[in-house]
Amino acid sequence: MKLRRSSRLVDMTHYLLHHPHQLVPLTFFAERYQSAKSSISEDLAIIKQTFEQQGIGILRTLPGAAGGVQYIPKIAEEEAKQFIAQLCTMLADPDRLLPGGYLYMTDLLGDTRIVNQIGRLYASVFAHEKIDFVVTVATKGIPLAYAVASFLNVPVVIIRRDSKVTEGSMVSINYVSGSSKRIQTMVLSKRSLTEGANVLIVDDFMKAGGTINGMISLLAEFKANVVGIGVLVESEEAEERLVDEYVSLVKLTSVNVKEKQITVEEGNYFQFVK
Amino acid sequence: MKLRRSSRLVDMTHYLLHHPHQLVPLTFFAERYQSAKSSISEDLAIIKQTFEQQGIGILRTLPGAAGGVQYIPKIAEEEAKQFIAQLCTMLADPDRLLPGGYLYMTDLLGDTRIVNQIGRLYASVFAHEKIDFVVTVATKGIPLAYAVASFLNVPVVIIRRDSKVTEGSMVSINYVSGSSKRIQTMVLSKRSLTEGANVLIVDDFMKAGGTINGMISLLAEFKANVVGIGVLVESEEAEERLVDEYVSLVKLTSVNVKEKQITVEEGNYFQFVK
Repeated sequence: MKLRRSSRLVDMTHYLLHHPHQLVPLTFFAERYQSAKSSISEDLAIIKQTFEQQGIGILRTLPGAAGGVQYIPKIAEEEAKQFIAQLCTMLADPDRLLPGGYLYMTDLLGDTRIVNQIGRLYASVFAHEKIDFVVTVATKGIPLAYAVASFLNVPVVIIRRDSKVTEGSMVSINYVSGSSKRIQTMVLSKRSLTEGANVLIVDDFMKAGGTINGMISLLAEFKANVVGIGVLVESEEAEERLVDEYVSLVKLTSVNVKEKQITVEEGNYFQFVK
Repeated sequence: MKLRRSSRLVDMTHYLLHHPHQLVPLTFFAERYQSAKSSISEDLAIIKQTFEQQGIGILRTLPGAAGGVQYIPKIAEEEAKQFIAQLCTMLADPDRLLPGGYLYMTDLLGDTRIVNQIGRLYASVFAHEKIDFVVTVATKGIPLAYAVASFLNVPVVIIRRDSKVTEGSMVSINYVSGSSKRIQTMVLSKRSLTEGANVLIVDDFMKAGGTINGMISLLAEFKANVVGIGVLVESEEAEERLVDEYVSLVKLTSVNVKEKQITVEEGNYFQFVK
């Protein structure tokens, strides 16, 4: 259907936002709107400039016959700073303290706006890695993994604690949890991950890193290549960290149950922002 | 920052798509772009027309001092039809058959594009209900619930099978599963749901409806008002259905393990599309 420039800008913006990281040939838009490729190029220049100016992301244009346009979600550093500061304030609320020094985060992880924003932050920092799958472990990391994966436009794979009949044949491993030193099990459906895939691990919380270490061991059974690890909250209280390189948004530096005090600060996120 | 119309159209489209169901005052855009309200109104007329024409959704304009503009995600009936037909084709693949007549759906539920589209379908059909929370039960329904909730711009609440220390005080119920007739448990964090809330239940699969019935009982403990139930796949094989009104995308009419045949058809979705 033939569309005027103003309508094309609206529809193209919608299309690009819903197809991140996908290379869209200019001919696709030219046919969609019955417009000349030169007009489409002009439209894209406007969208590119606005996306960059408003901190929406980057529009990459690849020339040539196999070329096209690719929208890469990117968050402006200032917006990321403000968002992480806001997360820190929310997490420092003493009402979050639970017996045993755990923090109640269910409300934050249930807020789709917050979850999607976390996804945008991780998709920004891992935008230039080759990622085939986002992997998480049930259940708290699931919404975060889907949010990241939506912005990267890749599928999600969920590791589970126990095997289910609806998952088919499973691969399982035992691992030692970092803090409790107990032996635990993780399983992954055989069909769910192709061999040799590039994966990004995402989880909500990391203390010693035993769970993530377990995930890495299980992923090794699939010959997966772990290209990155993102955790929402890292806890500094761990004596010995089993995982070295990870990207965290928030660092929990101390929890004082008696005084009802929680201290949080910015994680190492900005060390990885290029 | 002062923006020209073409840039305003791009930025406003992005803003509206990321704030569905939220009433945005015209003054917000007027200030954001240092433009006259009359120019903003003209921009919105273009966006409204394009959104409707391209099947992106509806732009509602509310006049008056407390007025503004509200983007309501809606899918065009034709697009929904095609998508459901595609889901049916994918589900009828005999390779999905697992022992016991179960279907492997992990790949579909791991595909963010499919999951988001399912979310759009449910958000369309429940667009005019007053919904405060989307509720699901761990773990397969979680991605669907977040997708629906993102388009409705409301939080998600996750019912669990066992209590976790990180959830604080929990309310639990026992219920009888529909197919296996076994007694099972469901728990929900006390803090996670406000009393008397309007909730939409979302899950991936429904046979007799025992799980959803259990959810309804647990939600009754929170005096919640169930305004709708959405299930991705309903199975016709149930002798007695415990849940009456629900919206399904796909209906599994028969599974023949011996002949390796799966028969699926469109669910009752279009009966609820207005």
